[in-house]
Amino acid sequence: MARVVVDVMPKPEILDPQGQVVARALPRLGFSGVTEVRQGKHFELEVDDSVDDETLAKIAEGLLANPVIEQWTVRRVEA
Amino acid sequence: MARVVVDVMPKPEILDPQGQVVARALPRLGFSGVTEVRQGKHFELEVDDSVDDETLAKIAEGLLANPVIEQWTVRRVEA
Repeated sequence: MARVVVDVMPKPEILDPQGQVVARALPRLGFSGVTEVRQGKHFELEVDDSVDDETLAKIAEGLLANPVIEQWTVRRVEA
Repeated sequence: MARVVVDVMPKPEILDPQGQVVARALPRLGFSGVTEVRQGKHFELEVDDSVDDETLAKIAEGLLANPVIEQWTVRRVEA
């Protein structure tokens, strides 16, 4: 068994309304110094040792991210 | 300037319907060996050097996560 983290983020050229809302709210709430916020998705998968990196890339690209507007990273972490 | 990553996940005792939908879809799509999927949020913040870890914790706990049902982690990463 292994734990795998997939992070999915809007591509840099894609507007991120959710992140912009958070960024604009921060000064109103008394937090200064945060110049940008971008919001994406974070997945944690438990996978058998039979699942190789190529399969993980297919899962990330095909099921977890929308590759037209999102980029993704896969990494294995200590369980 | 520093880049900060905040990951927000449903607490272990909280059901995660979105993650369960992904987990159930995988075998149908030909991917075996993934035993659990949990879905959360991933934030990337650009912050001034004046923003300390205590402030980042307040932002994560108060604005990015719902601490009743979610747990969060903050880490600084290389820009």
